Amino acid sequence: MYETLLMIPGPTRVAPRVLKAMSKSMINHRSAAFGEILKETNDMMSKVFRTENESYLLTGSGTAAMEAAVGNITQKGDKVLNILGGKFGERFMQITETHKGSPVELEVEWGHAVNPNYIKDILEKDEDIKAVTVVHNETSTGVANPIAEIGKIVKDYDALYIVDTVSSLGGDDVFVDGYNIDICVTGSQKCLAAPPGMAAITLSDDAWNVVDKTENDTYYLNMRKYKKSGDKNPPETPYTPSVSLMYAMREALNIIMEEGLDSRILRHKQAAKATRAGVKALGLELFAEPDAASNTVTAIKMPEGVTDKDLRGTMRNKYHIELAGGQDHLKGNVFRIGHMGNITQRDIITTISALEMTLKELGFDLEMGKGVEAVENVYLS
Amino acid sequence: MYETLLMIPGPTRVAPRVLKAMSKSMINHRSAAFGEILKETNDMMSKVFRTENESYLLTGSGTAAMEAAVGNITQKGDKVLNILGGKFGERFMQITETHKGSPVELEVEWGHAVNPNYIKDILEKDEDIKAVTVVHNETSTGVANPIAEIGKIVKDYDALYIVDTVSSLGGDDVFVDGYNIDICVTGSQKCLAAPPGMAAITLSDDAWNVVDKTENDTYYLNMRKYKKSGDKNPPETPYTPSVSLMYAMREALNIIMEEGLDSRILRHKQAAKATRAGVKALGLELFAEPDAASNTVTAIKMPEGVTDKDLRGTMRNKYHIELAGGQDHLKGNVFRIGHMGNITQRDIITTISALEMTLKELGFDLEMGKGVEAVENVYLS
Repeated sequence: MYETLLMIPGPTRVAPRVLKAMSKSMINHRSAAFGEILKETNDMMSKVFRTENESYLLTGSGTAAMEAAVGNITQKGDKVLNILGGKFGERFMQITETHKGSPVELEVEWGHAVNPNYIKDILEKDEDIKAVTVVHNETSTGVANPIAEIGKIVKDYDALYIVDTVSSLGGDDVFVDGYNIDICVTGSQKCLAAPPGMAAITLSDDAWNVVDKTENDTYYLNMRKYKKSGDKNPPETPYTPSVSLMYAMREALNIIMEEGLDSRILRHKQAAKATRAGVKALGLELFAEPDAASNTVTAIKMPEGVTDKDLRGTMRNKYHIELAGGQDHLKGNVFRIGHMGNITQRDIITTISALEMTLKELGFDLEMGKGVEAVENVYLS
Repeated sequence: MYETLLMIPGPTRVAPRVLKAMSKSMINHRSAAFGEILKETNDMMSKVFRTENESYLLTGSGTAAMEAAVGNITQKGDKVLNILGGKFGERFMQITETHKGSPVELEVEWGHAVNPNYIKDILEKDEDIKAVTVVHNETSTGVANPIAEIGKIVKDYDALYIVDTVSSLGGDDVFVDGYNIDICVTGSQKCLAAPPGMAAITLSDDAWNVVDKTENDTYYLNMRKYKKSGDKNPPETPYTPSVSLMYAMREALNIIMEEGLDSRILRHKQAAKATRAGVKALGLELFAEPDAASNTVTAIKMPEGVTDKDLRGTMRNKYHIELAGGQDHLKGNVFRIGHMGNITQRDIITTISALEMTLKELGFDLEMGKGVEAVENVYLS
């Protein structure tokens, strides 16, 4: 009877018209008809990335695109500055190591954003750094890193600027060209609200120059092959793409074009603000520093005396709302509310209300109604 | 008004109930509910592979699984015997090179199957060969390689036996354990008749031993990560899988279980025999040697004086039947009829009939009705 409300940082709820588009019959992926769909989808992706460059769709998760970004520009011994501070920052470092690069690690305390000046210091001291990797929105901690400011710094150095916008693109400000981003990657199942299984990547001319000179150890994720196939008219993919997911991506991007990217991002900002206000009004503490709070996911410290199982279990089983737990060393110590994709005021109000009731049941001393009141005040302001 | 009939070697027609299963709402890929779906799907995959070992589903194309097979067992300088003889045999060699392996190439003329004795000779002379790669069904040439016989040879040597069954599994005899296959890979969109975008892989204990000892340069396709996540109860995937495609795979595999694997393979054998008989009755020549003919795709020499554009264009535009062209140096020289997946007698009859009319229109001198008659005779025999 109840459909579970997904308040997790992906996969997010997919609109019925996207599910319907996805369920169309197969067509030949080497046909002109599919080429047109691919072209439309690529072009809309570039609009969402806010870049003049081409975008490429990969059949795979966001991690596949992260690996494509680093694997195509890294060869043995290449120094890559990896900004840590969360699970996905660390993933970039692991990928750098996998591709025999030499990570230069900038540790950031989980819950904090990186200070761009530290990046400047490192680039100033070490001119061999070939690329800088930043995760825009650390899904694991609910932190947004200042990618505009970092872009202003990196552009003065001979290093590529690689940004993971897997859980921010379409829900927070990302101007690939405006921020001087050389390689930007994202995933289908977060703010774009398509099903999981597709990832997108865009590369600047500078990035392509490096790709062309790099001894590449990727095959499925080899971007030169994607470019060669993508440059055909109509474009193709080097390997069989998921035709169904491409239908879905096109329709999800159509929805974004109809809503307007600015309106969509504003909607995410309001949802984030409302979520934080609601959570704080319930007496809970946010995990991320206030000035680093994400627009798309909020990490909340697990209140004293409450277990993850109790809190998320009650939310799931009694209120049919799925929240996310903590990852790695935050497991059990935080829980997370995703507010990305096709998220509405109703979803935030329902979630905060259910959280209020859950906490009350778990023996928390709180004044009922305060959480929802705080959410309403954000939406009315 | 007309839905195009896909007579190509993938993507193949997907049953409406699979499309419907795919269009269900998202669920959390880290939930117990998704774990159950993954477990069911993995277990059915192992049944289709006819192995006691675990299977793993990757979000990606068949090429991703080919790369996972080779990339996880190859490090710098490792000798891998690659059997060529078609585009996908060559792909295994390219993947070996990408992962810094040292390919030992066994060239086979396109259109011919490999002679297993040549493999024995090479393994006998060179005990450093770490693995042998074979493409069971060369989609590019319509050739099936004798994987049972090769398995009997390779098992006597200290080399892993890697088989690509992307375009044969579910449509031709594949006994992973029975043939001593160490790593077997397949794709979703061929004989399994699910949408493209998923691939499956299974590994023997011997293969895992090598994987564990190999310095790995893959991340997204790192099988150790898949094993670690897959060993959980319920199982997970290391990275976000395509939830929608997993729904589809499960339903497609349900259909295979209902039909029965033996019946399904028999249906493919009949379709292949009928297609070859029909084509020959039209006076056309098959590309593959008779004793090497594939069960799932038939490659046909382009008749003198006819262009690919005329032939496949007429079939597509007038008869709404999509055939495949030639790949690489066979482009324009052959065309291919895929008869895999949910293929029926009606599809073969319609295709041969349309081909007959197309050839007639293109000025061919042929006695009408002979093609369909030959098809009927196969189905009645």
